Amino acid sequence: MKISVLGTGAVGQTIGTKLVGLGHEVKMGSRDANHVKGLGWVKANGVRASLGTFLEAASFAELVFNCTAGRASLDVLGGLGPALAGKVLVDVSNPLDFSNGFPPSLFTPPGDSLGEQLQRALPACHVVKALNHISADVMVDPKLVASGDHDALICGNDAGAKARVSELMQSLGWQRFVDLGDIKAARGMEGYLLLWVSLMGPLGTAQFSLKIVK
Amino acid sequence: MKISVLGTGAVGQTIGTKLVGLGHEVKMGSRDANHVKGLGWVKANGVRASLGTFLEAASFAELVFNCTAGRASLDVLGGLGPALAGKVLVDVSNPLDFSNGFPPSLFTPPGDSLGEQLQRALPACHVVKALNHISADVMVDPKLVASGDHDALICGNDAGAKARVSELMQSLGWQRFVDLGDIKAARGMEGYLLLWVSLMGPLGTAQFSLKIVK
Repeated sequence: MKISVLGTGAVGQTIGTKLVGLGHEVKMGSRDANHVKGLGWVKANGVRASLGTFLEAASFAELVFNCTAGRASLDVLGGLGPALAGKVLVDVSNPLDFSNGFPPSLFTPPGDSLGEQLQRALPACHVVKALNHISADVMVDPKLVASGDHDALICGNDAGAKARVSELMQSLGWQRFVDLGDIKAARGMEGYLLLWVSLMGPLGTAQFSLKIVK
Repeated sequence: MKISVLGTGAVGQTIGTKLVGLGHEVKMGSRDANHVKGLGWVKANGVRASLGTFLEAASFAELVFNCTAGRASLDVLGGLGPALAGKVLVDVSNPLDFSNGFPPSLFTPPGDSLGEQLQRALPACHVVKALNHISADVMVDPKLVASGDHDALICGNDAGAKARVSELMQSLGWQRFVDLGDIKAARGMEGYLLLWVSLMGPLGTAQFSLKIVK
């Protein structure tokens, strides 16, 4: 599949590398098509890896990962409406505000979420919130934690888009999914990050996840 | 032990009943010492159960549960400083704002939590945030979910107070604890409620909990 990864940071690089390894054609999107880290990633990942502007990357792919920093996501994605129309956007970003240090708070107002803001800004795109609740290495290799016996949370307005994202996640090793419903549930998936940042210290690692039991 | 439960709602009644059953002397606190639901609870629970004003209940006990509605907690507890000095307050409340319907949002501002607000209002009291992240029936009977194989989250500034609360929770059946550190971690324990309310529908029950795996 042709997949784009918007953002050249650790999350984008980790996801992009895994997807190239699985045989997908992956274009990384950046503000600058000659971005040094992006070019380094292309060089390391061979012929199926490429770099372009955010617009080139959005135009290239059937399925797009938003791996930009939460603070920048609306600014970057808001301008890509026509290129993303009818496509699936996997939003792994979080609205974290580090302006007062650690632990971060959320910059979204009560009763809203970054996932919903992106869906409103991109009404013709199918936004699926997924993978935002785990560290990048676990996103692409869930078996790093408890042999993969933990839950992937997912939400979005379009059932077909969620099915495509779930299928791709299964190819990464994800076994258990909890479909939280429409994109409003991004409030909970992002709100959980406030707990995530509190767990990391006591657990002594960012390689952890949730198993929801009933 | 002499324990008080502030609040006559379902959570207060469930906790109070369980503690009486374990042999503790339990006073339920209410705005009105002749509160009808409170008197009904006393009648159903025998000689170790009693009812009083919030102040009488706070004065009576060594350990106090805050089971008031989140919206009312600061108003009720803020006036009990001298009665609660040196005591342990187990805060099971949540800052849920239902003014825009379901799902609720949080009424606390970014970078704060109800647990911290209570600790600031009651500087001589040892506030321990616990049990706010599960339904009342599971709070007092954790084996209802996955034979008890899931995590109790706890935080607070005083290690001795957390140890006392953990010991009491063990007597309820809790086996696994994650100590998140000082009361600041209440932000995460309360923020998780945004996910909790999204999980309840898809899971088809409020009887669920988290097992944190790494």
